[in-house]
Amino acid sequence: KGTAPGLRMQVGKAWVFALPGVPQEMLPMVDHDVIPFLQSASGEQRSVVVSRLLRTWGESESKVGELLADLYVTSLNPTIAFLASAGEIKVRLTAKAATEAEARRLIEPVEGEVRARLGSRVFAADDDTIEAILLGLLLDRGWTIGTAESATGGMVAARITSVPGSSAAFRGGVVAYDAATKTRLLGVPASVIAEHGLVSEEVAAAMAEGAAERLAVDVAIAVTGSAGPDEHDGTEPGTMVVAVRTPQATSVRTLRMPGDRERVRTYTTTAALHHARLAITGAVEGP
Amino acid sequence: KGTAPGLRMQVGKAWVFALPGVPQEMLPMVDHDVIPFLQSASGEQRSVVVSRLLRTWGESESKVGELLADLYVTSLNPTIAFLASAGEIKVRLTAKAATEAEARRLIEPVEGEVRARLGSRVFAADDDTIEAILLGLLLDRGWTIGTAESATGGMVAARITSVPGSSAAFRGGVVAYDAATKTRLLGVPASVIAEHGLVSEEVAAAMAEGAAERLAVDVAIAVTGSAGPDEHDGTEPGTMVVAVRTPQATSVRTLRMPGDRERVRTYTTTAALHHARLAITGAVEGP
Repeated sequence: KGTAPGLRMQVGKAWVFALPGVPQEMLPMVDHDVIPFLQSASGEQRSVVVSRLLRTWGESESKVGELLADLYVTSLNPTIAFLASAGEIKVRLTAKAATEAEARRLIEPVEGEVRARLGSRVFAADDDTIEAILLGLLLDRGWTIGTAESATGGMVAARITSVPGSSAAFRGGVVAYDAATKTRLLGVPASVIAEHGLVSEEVAAAMAEGAAERLAVDVAIAVTGSAGPDEHDGTEPGTMVVAVRTPQATSVRTLRMPGDRERVRTYTTTAALHHARLAITGAVEGP
Repeated sequence: KGTAPGLRMQVGKAWVFALPGVPQEMLPMVDHDVIPFLQSASGEQRSVVVSRLLRTWGESESKVGELLADLYVTSLNPTIAFLASAGEIKVRLTAKAATEAEARRLIEPVEGEVRARLGSRVFAADDDTIEAILLGLLLDRGWTIGTAESATGGMVAARITSVPGSSAAFRGGVVAYDAATKTRLLGVPASVIAEHGLVSEEVAAAMAEGAAERLAVDVAIAVTGSAGPDEHDGTEPGTMVVAVRTPQATSVRTLRMPGDRERVRTYTTTAALHHARLAITGAVEGP
């Protein structure tokens, strides 16, 4: 993963490791060299730590914590931890055992209990991101997808295309920042913009439908809004509107996002991807 | 910046601080409460640490280090550090003094010397990112900008629109992932794609020119390429082509980017923004 070398030397009774600082060089050395060396040098029985990450959407960290409060207190192996990122709450189960198989056996019943309590809030496990899950749903159905973005400025398209192989479903997107571009590239009627404003459910729906037509895709995700720091077309910063067009229907949601421009854009991008997942699977929409 | 409280208590001769773990809650408490409290409690003379960040483009970390090698060794206040991120090499000068003004006076001559040696490689200082610098250049000229992206999938548009107020210059962008979308939305002639391939300087130039016309903008940035992990249209992963159309000319560069899909996309996005800066200012193109 690079050319920087790592050093190991014995100083008195201690082993000193000098590793490169770049994480993508350092971490493989820790995993493949340092830890096995220390385990073998210490002569101790090896123990293995295994983690399972359950990804949830649609509930606050405090609500997820409440639903799992007693497990959190009583379960010591695996331990339970909560991690929040961009509106997704992740529940991490970590077990320690002599072998990986044994650690997994310890995790299994607790995972079952966590899943039973959280139900459809759990949308994926481990490294399956929402963008990868969304692509899987599209490929299952043989559907294509495109985007129409204003306030997120290309972030939804960038997230979808971050997945290797996304070209099997993703056709393209339009970033339409001003009113004229929304009309010219997405066919949003100027009258709809004039009547409802740039940040409106009507404009978001028209963007999604325009994108579906212009990009010739089955599913289109549209985002308009005011990311801040200033008002946009008279709407308060943090007001974001997401629309998803599927072959069945177009659904629209207005979100109020706290935080600065970067946070509003990142959270809205994640929310838009979840909105698309829920619209495709026909589930009741999450928050 | 949040609702989590911080605690301070005295345990024997020690002060214990308990702060929330979220950086955006924790850091202001450290700056505004913990450090002033400790300074005042210790009765020591306050000292101030001031950093100056010079951002460079167009040279490797080892070349920048070589140009500044003797300063790096001899300069102790300010100290010199090198930071690499996505192809940009940052030179950080950090001085410690009794007052901020004095720290800045210590930095000044060393900054002058660093700038003299690095010349036009220094494109900005402190928090001025390439996207903010690019927007400033556009606003100075009263020019508008748009994007046409394939392999970067919206990341160039997302970077430009991350800057508050970017709507003053940014009109919109097209993410054209497949050949048909490049032709339909950007007017790239199918014959050019057939003759030169999707990853070619000819297609990149046609994307930039098509974007300038369709989005009605003065400057257009286009990116096509193969981000990996698989070949795209017969070109090796990491082969990326950037084109910039200005009112004067269209310039095109082919880049070979190492690393995985995420790294190739991120580095190419940064390179495309610099390419646009250099094309607008009429400078000789950097690498």
